[in-house]
Amino acid sequence: MRLKLTIAYDGRPFVGWQSQPGGQTVQDHLEGAIQAIGGAQIRVHGSGRTDTGVHALGQVAHFDPPDGNRMAPDEWQRALNSKLPNTIRVLDSTSVKDDFHARFDAESKTYRYRICLAQVLPPLEHGLAWHLPYSIDREILHECAALLTGEHDFASFAANRGDGSDGQNTTRTIHGIGTEEESDLLELTFRGSGFLYKMVRLLTGSLVRCAQEQETVAWLAGLLENPGNPKSTFCAPADGLSLTQVRYPEPDHV
Amino acid sequence: MRLKLTIAYDGRPFVGWQSQPGGQTVQDHLEGAIQAIGGAQIRVHGSGRTDTGVHALGQVAHFDPPDGNRMAPDEWQRALNSKLPNTIRVLDSTSVKDDFHARFDAESKTYRYRICLAQVLPPLEHGLAWHLPYSIDREILHECAALLTGEHDFASFAANRGDGSDGQNTTRTIHGIGTEEESDLLELTFRGSGFLYKMVRLLTGSLVRCAQEQETVAWLAGLLENPGNPKSTFCAPADGLSLTQVRYPEPDHV
Repeated sequence: MRLKLTIAYDGRPFVGWQSQPGGQTVQDHLEGAIQAIGGAQIRVHGSGRTDTGVHALGQVAHFDPPDGNRMAPDEWQRALNSKLPNTIRVLDSTSVKDDFHARFDAESKTYRYRICLAQVLPPLEHGLAWHLPYSIDREILHECAALLTGEHDFASFAANRGDGSDGQNTTRTIHGIGTEEESDLLELTFRGSGFLYKMVRLLTGSLVRCAQEQETVAWLAGLLENPGNPKSTFCAPADGLSLTQVRYPEPDHV
Repeated sequence: MRLKLTIAYDGRPFVGWQSQPGGQTVQDHLEGAIQAIGGAQIRVHGSGRTDTGVHALGQVAHFDPPDGNRMAPDEWQRALNSKLPNTIRVLDSTSVKDDFHARFDAESKTYRYRICLAQVLPPLEHGLAWHLPYSIDREILHECAALLTGEHDFASFAANRGDGSDGQNTTRTIHGIGTEEESDLLELTFRGSGFLYKMVRLLTGSLVRCAQEQETVAWLAGLLENPGNPKSTFCAPADGLSLTQVRYPEPDHV
């Protein structure tokens, strides 16, 4: 049996998704909980990494319960939630085909970036939004969002991981960038085929840089036309970023 | 000069608004910041207390800067925010008439109570919503909200402070109770002339008790008709509660 988990977490207490010596990652906590329940060391495969401080409302991961384990998917959900800190919650657990893969089968991902434009950051937004008490030109913002949408080589909006994965193909498709605003909160929603390392934060930082008229739309267009030469250096902080949804082709259930 | 401050705070790290030995209250932090800036011990008067864990998006308080202090209202705002923990923020600071009083002049207050109905509480809602993964009858909820609206003796919905303030008049006017719902989040908004100790939490707990059909609407009506005899014992947790706004008659500015 293979289980697909939908997971939400508050990114603040963790050094990101991916397992690390030290163990203060979401993956380490999940694998620790599975071991406590199932009695075996089992690898959890996420749809992708999230960085230190980045939140998730709908991260997806899969794992294979240990041989002989007869727990139903919802029993696994309850057992995991009883072992995990309440900063990580399993929102859903379903049985999927044996060849389902959270990372390789992902069809699209949606990230949300929250920007607080108020003069003073409300305390309940601390760690959940980028505080940007400056004027933003909405027309330029929309123009830049349209420019970035579609299939492009996003090498200019990728940070180096420094782990040998940097020779990869950097072409991705952004299906859409939404810009919603309510009172002092601006939400950017990026839906795409996949995102490079720190890509959403580099796109957000670069968009904001243009909307603040500190760079031109032509500068942004140039970054797309000359992939990686140079790269954008305007990376928005982790605080405002959440992985909200990962989509798979139907049906992924058994 | 007298200053009127509009203050927001995350209630989680504090044992409420009101000054206490130990000092981990919002009032203590404000008075400490004023002393650090103005060099004198000055009392801050809030519009009212909030309990341990209760949040504020728009608490109001006033104080008189020390004699000889020439700082403008916005200078006070910036100075206070630089001294306060980021769980407390001064959102606004304005000069008001010498006889303005944050508590006695308050015309109405608005509290918001957030209830999360999802099966699993999302991590980012932890400490910010009451987790209630049960079915709620909306029709009963609306009926009860209408019943509580208006001028009533709310003695059945007041906890004893045990500080000698319990002989006070318990008649209050609730101008309206809003019930808004989006995805799994139910928001109750209480606007009224004033609220007794723990009144919003007791109203919320009692409303929910009816909407879960564990008590009848007649039971709720009986609590209003026989003030304080008995009292409701269904007090919703502090987590979901925020003081959102305090209104004053115009003009309160100098």
